[in-house]
Amino acid sequence: MLDQTRGVYIVTQTPFDDAGAVDLPSIDTLVDFYLKHGADGLTVLGVAGEAGKLTPQEARAVAGRFIRRAQGRPVVVGVSSASVAQLRELTAEVMDLGAAGVMIAPPGGLRTEEELFSYFATVFREIGDVPTVLQDFPFSTGTWMSVASILQLVERHPQIQVLKEEDLPSITKITKLREAQGRRIAILTGNNAMFLPLEMGRGIDGPMAGFSHPEMLSGVYRLFQQRQVEEAHDLFDAYLPLLSYENQSQWGVAVRKEVLRRRGAIGSAAMRSPGPRLTPVDLGEIDRLVRRTAAAAARWN
Amino acid sequence: MLDQTRGVYIVTQTPFDDAGAVDLPSIDTLVDFYLKHGADGLTVLGVAGEAGKLTPQEARAVAGRFIRRAQGRPVVVGVSSASVAQLRELTAEVMDLGAAGVMIAPPGGLRTEEELFSYFATVFREIGDVPTVLQDFPFSTGTWMSVASILQLVERHPQIQVLKEEDLPSITKITKLREAQGRRIAILTGNNAMFLPLEMGRGIDGPMAGFSHPEMLSGVYRLFQQRQVEEAHDLFDAYLPLLSYENQSQWGVAVRKEVLRRRGAIGSAAMRSPGPRLTPVDLGEIDRLVRRTAAAAARWN
Amino acid sequence: MLDQTRGVYIVTQTPFDDAGAVDLPSIDTLVDFYLKHGADGLTVLGVAGEAGKLTPQEARAVAGRFIRRAQGRPVVVGVSSASVAQLRELTAEVMDLGAAGVMIAPPGGLRTEEELFSYFATVFREIGDVPTVLQDFPFSTGTWMSVASILQLVERHPQIQVLKEEDLPSITKITKLREAQGRRIAILTGNNAMFLPLEMGRGIDGPMAGFSHPEMLSGVYRLFQQRQVEEAHDLFDAYLPLLSYENQSQWGVAVRKEVLRRRGAIGSAAMRSPGPRLTPVDLGEIDRLVRRTAAAAARWN
Amino acid sequence: MLDQTRGVYIVTQTPFDDAGAVDLPSIDTLVDFYLKHGADGLTVLGVAGEAGKLTPQEARAVAGRFIRRAQGRPVVVGVSSASVAQLRELTAEVMDLGAAGVMIAPPGGLRTEEELFSYFATVFREIGDVPTVLQDFPFSTGTWMSVASILQLVERHPQIQVLKEEDLPSITKITKLREAQGRRIAILTGNNAMFLPLEMGRGIDGPMAGFSHPEMLSGVYRLFQQRQVEEAHDLFDAYLPLLSYENQSQWGVAVRKEVLRRRGAIGSAAMRSPGPRLTPVDLGEIDRLVRRTAAAAARWN
Repeated sequence: MLDQTRGVYIVTQTPFDDAGAVDLPSIDTLVDFYLKHGADGLTVLGVAGEAGKLTPQEARAVAGRFIRRAQGRPVVVGVSSASVAQLRELTAEVMDLGAAGVMIAPPGGLRTEEELFSYFATVFREIGDVPTVLQDFPFSTGTWMSVASILQLVERHPQIQVLKEEDLPSITKITKLREAQGRRIAILTGNNAMFLPLEMGRGIDGPMAGFSHPEMLSGVYRLFQQRQVEEAHDLFDAYLPLLSYENQSQWGVAVRKEVLRRRGAIGSAAMRSPGPRLTPVDLGEIDRLVRRTAAAAARWN
Repeated sequence: MLDQTRGVYIVTQTPFDDAGAVDLPSIDTLVDFYLKHGADGLTVLGVAGEAGKLTPQEARAVAGRFIRRAQGRPVVVGVSSASVAQLRELTAEVMDLGAAGVMIAPPGGLRTEEELFSYFATVFREIGDVPTVLQDFPFSTGTWMSVASILQLVERHPQIQVLKEEDLPSITKITKLREAQGRRIAILTGNNAMFLPLEMGRGIDGPMAGFSHPEMLSGVYRLFQQRQVEEAHDLFDAYLPLLSYENQSQWGVAVRKEVLRRRGAIGSAAMRSPGPRLTPVDLGEIDRLVRRTAAAAARWN
Repeated sequence: MLDQTRGVYIVTQTPFDDAGAVDLPSIDTLVDFYLKHGADGLTVLGVAGEAGKLTPQEARAVAGRFIRRAQGRPVVVGVSSASVAQLRELTAEVMDLGAAGVMIAPPGGLRTEEELFSYFATVFREIGDVPTVLQDFPFSTGTWMSVASILQLVERHPQIQVLKEEDLPSITKITKLREAQGRRIAILTGNNAMFLPLEMGRGIDGPMAGFSHPEMLSGVYRLFQQRQVEEAHDLFDAYLPLLSYENQSQWGVAVRKEVLRRRGAIGSAAMRSPGPRLTPVDLGEIDRLVRRTAAAAARWN
Repeated sequence: MLDQTRGVYIVTQTPFDDAGAVDLPSIDTLVDFYLKHGADGLTVLGVAGEAGKLTPQEARAVAGRFIRRAQGRPVVVGVSSASVAQLRELTAEVMDLGAAGVMIAPPGGLRTEEELFSYFATVFREIGDVPTVLQDFPFSTGTWMSVASILQLVERHPQIQVLKEEDLPSITKITKLREAQGRRIAILTGNNAMFLPLEMGRGIDGPMAGFSHPEMLSGVYRLFQQRQVEEAHDLFDAYLPLLSYENQSQWGVAVRKEVLRRRGAIGSAAMRSPGPRLTPVDLGEIDRLVRRTAAAAARWN
């Protein structure tokens, strides 16, 4: 189901209420918000979705709710886990629930290509024939994959249909991947979309990222489809100060949830503990940046 | 239940069959083997118990089986997880099943004392009043705790009743911990017992370690109880070559399981994938070391 | 000499010729370029200055050349080294050459506050009474310092007169540092100035960062001095796309050197091996971003 | 000069006086001690030799003193450095002084095979035709090399004539290396010789390790030469408790220096700061272990 992947995949937040419980109704409003702002697909239970803080049952419930609300749009579910058994189980469950595929990053602590290949041999033997997004996010996982290693994995495992590329620099890696021989797979990029127009220029198939203003992601993507490269940069640049502000790892996620709350997409900006809490000073900065972003976006239109 | 902890806690293996499924009947024979060789308590689902490869249901089943077979001996269950929610859930379940307490190591990626304290504040608020073994195993977790930090955690959280100390050198840290003021807690030591007689001499309350020959662990412990220090060293030294051979991280676990299989304690030496596989060369070395250990132990008796 | 530090400190590149030799004449043109664009001081031999690729003699020669050309402006010299003896020697040499002070980051592998304090006790005993910038750059060093640890170091060591803050998020850490009691020291910020106007708003004393367009750094600083906060943001935002493009670790340094070469500041954009090399595709992106930056800056004026 | 390497290479300590200065006269007594106890060659300026605490001039002076005193035995000099320029300079200097070759470990932070190969391409282009020991010590460097990567480096760089293997488990890696096709190089093993008889059984060419009792290393080596395998194990086992005690990273080095001091090999046991200091409790343990080692060794003879 992922083999023709292209377009705008939004990496979703997981809404919690102020007591730290999963807020399922907010998933519905959040999905509606994403679709209204141009999402072609969703990626749930990623790092920015606080997937690592859930129980398996919660993960299943969250994924199921997103899938049901997505009105047939493809939903990719992050299933990375230190435990292959847990990864396999969640994979089977979410595929039953209607996921388009799963996203898998290598765990930390894989230290050589040999260990990397051995890990994925086990994983793909266990999960079977499931469409998979391979996530290359070394600053989060601690496991680095060279271009040669990624191509080797693609060669060995037909399940890999998409690469989520978020090494840094992503742009040089994208060019090397696109110049390589072998089976073509889709490349979507993360890193909070910090280099989206350049990545589009290097030949990716779209963003797979989160942002409080997904209309920018879809706008840049559509402009590139229409070969309006300068305009795509103009639009991107209008949002870049806020995008960069949200690009501060888990603290940036707290900001993003606060802005999504202000825009009515979710009921509470709370992150599950342990996690950052915003202060009045932080909120004042958000006021300024949101106001400036609105003004810049208005100038652009 | 753990506040008077002392004695010999064996860190258990998790038996799998050759197809990789949990082998529950082997848990019974393994517990009997441990008890016969002097275990006062058991610690299940540790790193050497391949806990990270199980699903939560499997973890629950394994812990329950160990607890039932332990005939009232205290069983500590490792519940460490990247997800506090999952940690909390497993804690509640195993306490219901009759565990004496849980063992918790900080996750990787805690980089300052501030983050360490914040993590455990969340954990203990979530799990409530559960007797806890704090595991200090930085080479496995990647999170280092100074003596001052450990004392601070003990001060803040009355749930911490035992410290499993397996930093290196453990011995100097033990002395500093024992010389410190504050609430006294039990200290048991891991690191595959590589420094057990020295650690006993520094004032610990017993080992919490795995070994294919637990009779050495209990023997050294009893000799120290009887103040037979030289004899304790003699016994330890007789087993040290094999102990050291098993002290090679996950590959050493494969060795230990093979020796336990040969001794009739478990049905299969298999580790769950991804994990090491022993070769004929490896098995030949085990032949030699087991034979030599038997001879040295015989000389000692 | 650093105790009243405030203003714009530019983190300098080290120029090499195409064969990889240090290009001393380019240091002169580079210093002139920095001063013309508003530098109040210079920081030489930082991470972005490829300090780790030099021999001690080369480091001395480079530092000396920068100091002589700086016309009395304060020059801070990075002296961090795995070897305290080497750090002490370079410190003595550059202070003799007229440096205003040195910058020191903890080495990697300090894993607890205890080890951190012990390291700096040794360092400051060895170097004696030398004005020092403490560099908090954990993503480069691998050693994390909490706010409490930094304050403790400031308390213990009067030599620390400036903190170069480049943890992420820097902004929340700056607020905590400014709210804390104790001896006030200057705070300058790095991270390629990616958050400069927000950091200024949080109370720092200026940037200590590198950029191919230092006129932006000095411009933002002066506007904040005049309390023109919105204008400072406007100026910053005009340069942000290029700034972000240069903010890609060592590859970003290659970009910066190329832009500095185009602006006539240095003779060659070469980095010493091993290091990145720019491709025609990369150079094309630089064309676009430099052109767009010029247009945005022109609109701003 | 290293292409026929076999035998016992002792990894040397660097003697300091109590004030922390290099103690050159103790180098002479230390070399004499090593040679008397069976050293065929020496390896100076390794991790256990506190190489990282020296200035380049000190490193040169230490290496030169060892070389002069070694009476023509081959001396390998560790030249690993974060700076390739510094590595190249020290290499040229010690080869001029008469070193048999240099030992190089990859720096930390090489994250893929691509980066590893690129690093060594730069290094060997810079140092030219110098006999080299490639050091595989990932737990110290943080850079892992698979068997395939090591073979690739050996293939590319004829300078590599010896591999110092100290990954864990070393034994399985040795077997894979010996079974591989390609140019044969010598393999010596480190890790404080903790697995020496097993490594000999797997086909290595000798130890390259430090120990306060080098007579054990040379004894085990000679017994293996005479195919007296059981006797080699017997000898090894007699020393294993003390060997293991010294195998506690930098703290273990402090122990080793203390025992070497007691045996008259060096004038002071001091380590250069920052480094561990032994307490009376530690010294009491050393008393016991040295006494027990002497008794066990006497039983063996």
